[in-house]
Amino acid sequence: SRSLNLAVIPGDGIGQEVVAQGLKVLSAVLPQDVKLETREYDLGARRWHRTGETLPEAELDSLRQHDAILLGAIGDPSVPAGVLERGLLLKLRFAFDHYVNLRPSKLFPNTATPLAGRPEIDFVVVREGTEGPYTGNGGALRTGTPAEVATEVSVNTAYGVERVVRDAFARADTRPRKKLTLVHKNNVLVHAGHMWKRIFDKVAEEYPAVTTDYLHVDAATIFFVTQPERFDVIVTDNLFGDILTDLAAAVTGGIGLAASGNINPTGEFPSMFEPVHGSAPDIAGTGKADPTATVLSVALLLRHLGHEAEAARVEDAVAADLADRGESRSDAEGAAGGRQRTTDEIGDALAARVAG
Amino acid sequence: SRSLNLAVIPGDGIGQEVVAQGLKVLSAVLPQDVKLETREYDLGARRWHRTGETLPEAELDSLRQHDAILLGAIGDPSVPAGVLERGLLLKLRFAFDHYVNLRPSKLFPNTATPLAGRPEIDFVVVREGTEGPYTGNGGALRTGTPAEVATEVSVNTAYGVERVVRDAFARADTRPRKKLTLVHKNNVLVHAGHMWKRIFDKVAEEYPAVTTDYLHVDAATIFFVTQPERFDVIVTDNLFGDILTDLAAAVTGGIGLAASGNINPTGEFPSMFEPVHGSAPDIAGTGKADPTATVLSVALLLRHLGHEAEAARVEDAVAADLADRGESRSDAEGAAGGRQRTTDEIGDALAARVAG
Ligand SMILES: CC(C)[C@H](C(=O)O)[C@@H](O)C(=O)O
Ligand SMILES: CC(C)[C@H](C(=O)O)[C@@H](O)C(=O)O
Repeated sequence: SRSLNLAVIPGDGIGQEVVAQGLKVLSAVLPQDVKLETREYDLGARRWHRTGETLPEAELDSLRQHDAILLGAIGDPSVPAGVLERGLLLKLRFAFDHYVNLRPSKLFPNTATPLAGRPEIDFVVVREGTEGPYTGNGGALRTGTPAEVATEVSVNTAYGVERVVRDAFARADTRPRKKLTLVHKNNVLVHAGHMWKRIFDKVAEEYPAVTTDYLHVDAATIFFVTQPERFDVIVTDNLFGDILTDLAAAVTGGIGLAASGNINPTGEFPSMFEPVHGSAPDIAGTGKADPTATVLSVALLLRHLGHEAEAARVEDAVAADLADRGESRSDAEGAAGGRQRTTDEIGDALAARVAG
Repeated sequence: SRSLNLAVIPGDGIGQEVVAQGLKVLSAVLPQDVKLETREYDLGARRWHRTGETLPEAELDSLRQHDAILLGAIGDPSVPAGVLERGLLLKLRFAFDHYVNLRPSKLFPNTATPLAGRPEIDFVVVREGTEGPYTGNGGALRTGTPAEVATEVSVNTAYGVERVVRDAFARADTRPRKKLTLVHKNNVLVHAGHMWKRIFDKVAEEYPAVTTDYLHVDAATIFFVTQPERFDVIVTDNLFGDILTDLAAAVTGGIGLAASGNINPTGEFPSMFEPVHGSAPDIAGTGKADPTATVLSVALLLRHLGHEAEAARVEDAVAADLADRGESRSDAEGAAGGRQRTTDEIGDALAARVAG
């Protein structure tokens, strides 16, 4: 009999609540013969306050043994900015070589978008996950004095760029529209930008069926709101991908619906799945958090582990649930249509749909 | 009698056409006793193709003598990405210490926005203009080989950050809402981000009437489309400012309306005014370019040189002209409402309004 040995990091704020719903749906959709084993890891703000640790080596070694990781959210205002992000979330992405940060954006029917005219949006951003301005390179000199200097170094390697560009081409090649857009800023960041473009153009020769395009990151944000239908697959650097995927989430119904996978395509390390949203401490514990982004992240997890039919069932359940919520939906549920369902109720509804 | 000694760099693509309209409006609005002298500089793609030069030292010295610079657009597909941007546009911004890159965003009545619900938008981005990832620091090693490494170094100094933050606080303090938002990514770019935040918090103490706020750049893009009315003044780094102001332009009627000033507040060097849009080679010479962004940049130029009444007259003329174009406006003029006016006709109409 098969098994799925899952590490669960609920993390901070609403992380706990949304992860519980993700697990509920996962249990409901998994085939009977797949034995689900989960182990919860107490990492995040509470742990840091208690012990000063963000991600001890022993935990990292233990996490490595799992088939995949489901993560809720990391970050709390009580912890200085960067401590948990760099010490835990980014440490996991880097330690487990999650070089493909996969972020699909789809405007489901009947979900609210701030865009007039409801354009058709269905694209996926392949964000590089292990390089760029996220390496932590750089430093500060004479901190706190008028002569202070602080640098941030974006590190880009042909090794790192080529593998993520290849992944993006392969994905584009399997999609009906077969279009891949490189987003960078090669008119200003000429060192890294030219390398990205050169490698992109070289790999493109191996994919004659894929239509390619290049946009500067500033221009890309314009098209995200004026012509999002022009995008199919986007490949971009770590920081540009961070910015673009929040904007993408905003135009496709909000951060409450945006899923992501931090993928190590070689399978050497476990991949990690998490909603794009943060820990939202302002609504933690109120039952207002929308668990849909986590549930959609579970679909990405299922697909990554080869459970394609189950992944599709989860996505269909979400689409049906969103359709039922109606046009006026906002935040977890929207103003109209009576009482908003709680986090738990949405999770129950989705679990019922995938089981049924 | 007073004089205005203006350098004009039409540049590439539609630059020539829109700058002509800017000058038309400037002539029409200037008080009789101000003598307008202009000198045109042939810089951009044509010059580069002809001579290989982007910005010779002699031209730079000559430009320095002017009261201000009006620039159309720089960049052409026939020139490798970065050559003109780094060698001309950014060289000017850096050489003339344009540390305040001022970019107002206002949704005028009756102009099209991709946002449903037409939120009220009236904010200004104070983008740092002389540091950050725009310094050109960094490099490439083993270019073109599988072992290639390329870096981009964001350089941030207390000197550079404090002066732009001070400028932003002073601006916020003069506005009715008195709100200033710092945008950075201090949970990841901890070296530069913490310095920005520390300096921002320190200067804030001198401006007790100004309400302050901090947003990560990714979250800021969300609010640009879901709650743009929450912004009053934004201060941010060079690259984040680049990205955010294109998005801001997109939600306030498009890049055809977005003005900017590259300002050297000390007056040591001439400030430079330019539309945010690029050279748009696809529509160059067709008369389809909207000169409004350039005309609004002329308003910023007038204000910078102390002609406040004239600046306001130009802005009022633009508002009235936009109101007359009607709801359906898009690109230069919009589909409905009959024939689109040409670049020249829009310039004539604006010149007539400011004169009348
Ligand atoms: C929390 C933060 C470090 C993270 C990032 O910048 O990658 C988040 O914004 C994301 O997009 O997953
Ligand atoms: C053309 C380019 C170098 C420039 C920039 O990145 O600053 C442009 O995008 C702008 O916003 O003025």
